[in-house]
Amino acid sequence: MAKNLAIRLTARPSGGPISEELFEIVELPQQPLHDGQFLVRQSSLSLDPAMFGWMLPDKDSYIPPVALGEVMRGSGVGEVLESRHPDFKTGDKVRGMFGWQTLITSNGSGVSKIDPSLSDEMVLSVFSLPGLTATHGFYHVLQPEVGQTLVVSGAAGSVGSIVGQLAKAEGLHVVGVAGSDEKCEWLTDELGFDAALNYKTADLENTLATLTPEGIDRYFENTGGAIQLPVYNRMNAHGRIAVCGLIAEYGGGTEPPGLSWINIIKKRLTVQGFTMPDHLHQAPTLLEKLTPHVVAGKIKYRSHVLEGLPSAIEGLNLFTNGGNKGKLMVRL
Amino acid sequence: MAKNLAIRLTARPSGGPISEELFEIVELPQQPLHDGQFLVRQSSLSLDPAMFGWMLPDKDSYIPPVALGEVMRGSGVGEVLESRHPDFKTGDKVRGMFGWQTLITSNGSGVSKIDPSLSDEMVLSVFSLPGLTATHGFYHVLQPEVGQTLVVSGAAGSVGSIVGQLAKAEGLHVVGVAGSDEKCEWLTDELGFDAALNYKTADLENTLATLTPEGIDRYFENTGGAIQLPVYNRMNAHGRIAVCGLIAEYGGGTEPPGLSWINIIKKRLTVQGFTMPDHLHQAPTLLEKLTPHVVAGKIKYRSHVLEGLPSAIEGLNLFTNGGNKGKLMVRL
Repeated sequence: MAKNLAIRLTARPSGGPISEELFEIVELPQQPLHDGQFLVRQSSLSLDPAMFGWMLPDKDSYIPPVALGEVMRGSGVGEVLESRHPDFKTGDKVRGMFGWQTLITSNGSGVSKIDPSLSDEMVLSVFSLPGLTATHGFYHVLQPEVGQTLVVSGAAGSVGSIVGQLAKAEGLHVVGVAGSDEKCEWLTDELGFDAALNYKTADLENTLATLTPEGIDRYFENTGGAIQLPVYNRMNAHGRIAVCGLIAEYGGGTEPPGLSWINIIKKRLTVQGFTMPDHLHQAPTLLEKLTPHVVAGKIKYRSHVLEGLPSAIEGLNLFTNGGNKGKLMVRL
Repeated sequence: MAKNLAIRLTARPSGGPISEELFEIVELPQQPLHDGQFLVRQSSLSLDPAMFGWMLPDKDSYIPPVALGEVMRGSGVGEVLESRHPDFKTGDKVRGMFGWQTLITSNGSGVSKIDPSLSDEMVLSVFSLPGLTATHGFYHVLQPEVGQTLVVSGAAGSVGSIVGQLAKAEGLHVVGVAGSDEKCEWLTDELGFDAALNYKTADLENTLATLTPEGIDRYFENTGGAIQLPVYNRMNAHGRIAVCGLIAEYGGGTEPPGLSWINIIKKRLTVQGFTMPDHLHQAPTLLEKLTPHVVAGKIKYRSHVLEGLPSAIEGLNLFTNGGNKGKLMVRL
């Protein structure tokens, strides 16, 4: 019987890069299937910034942390190898929270079948957490209006790039913030953003003032870091901010000082945090909003594919060092 | 003809207590009325924390600052002394943005007649900005639910005391934050708050933990200052924060460091600022919500009445040194 290659979390990160010392790579024997079960071979595992949160023992987080000794949490795409379940048959393409492992025995809970004509890259880059997160945050949290100016940080990331493209499709003026000139060129030349700025090299305050001459009405926050204050200071009255990620502020240790709420009163801002696990039941509604834009060719994406399960570990650092060139995933 | 005693703003505050050096007290001659005008003798002038903002030359503020040389802005109650206006007659009790002066020539714009059986104190303490602000912030911004825990800072102030009483009337667990033991006793013994804490003497973190055993669902922020962080850290998932005032952070100079947004994501908080000038058109709806509670005797108030127009100047400092014992107003 095939062995399941799996990665378990064995220690909690305490700041600094993620390394093999936090994990254990094991080969687990497969048990025969019972009635009502099926076996999935995972073909692609998604890497997501939320994984940093899942590794930390934070009682306040939106879902429980991964317990030490457990297989690390993750979502992925795979194929049914063998089935004793009435709803799944050998060869079905499926998605689910399969974890960092190659073989999964499932009873079907949380697993859904997907169109086999879609590539793993399309599924994980668009019709999955990134697309759902972008769609919920853009439409439901930011409640945008035509002609407004939207800034999105982490704009070349899997969520940010979809937010910006949705905003362009809906008639907003869109400025992306990213961490390299190459990413900025991709945003403006390929995705049609009105402008982009490289937060590592730009004079943030002046560049932002030039690129948002009418101020900022909507801010989709994926990163935190040095861009946050200049954006906050250019928000227009009644502006809305969706706080989706603060990758620059993760990594353990003490939280950096934040922003005074004086702007929130003076400009009557609404700052709202969200995480997708609260909204997964809205997935059908969200897909109804997202899919037409995809079908119309308005949503382009790039994937950054790592090879082999162990590359997931070092792969997480690409979120914090800016090395990711698109939706991160691991081909198993 | 009677003279109008008026106070003009002549300099902008630059931090520290408000003093006479920023103002000029003048006697202005009255001109005869034209057709369509009437003359009001103001009987009581409201003092409000918003006045600090009105004195500052801040282009981002929600209404223009008072120009240097202009009579200082303020709202009040008065009586019509003489009228050549068809809708107002001698003896009518009226309210309006009358400014820091004793006699006002009006064309009726922004002036409304009020029930002459209501005392000036009742009008300015409840059926005016404080009551409208509390009602809008509590119902529309905080969107409370029965059984939730609400914390309100500046709880013995004119807005905070009404917020807490509305919350009790609607079945919430209510904890007030105030700046003296006497105020705290008033909140619990007279107004029926479940608990109150003196931010000047309490061990904030531990006391708050004791008084809010199930965490905090709704926070009505009137003050900023040292209470803000411990409250923020005890917010429950999906909590809502209404940012109405940050009196501890006014006074010119640089803004204090604020709060990281990590809590906003982790707990999916909504932090929303508001100022009443945006919502005055909703006054009828707000009064529909507020009035039944007043009629039912659920809304008690205390006024702190200063005597004579010049006392308005020093009176503003009572907001920042905590010396006010209720809704501040000046009897003219």
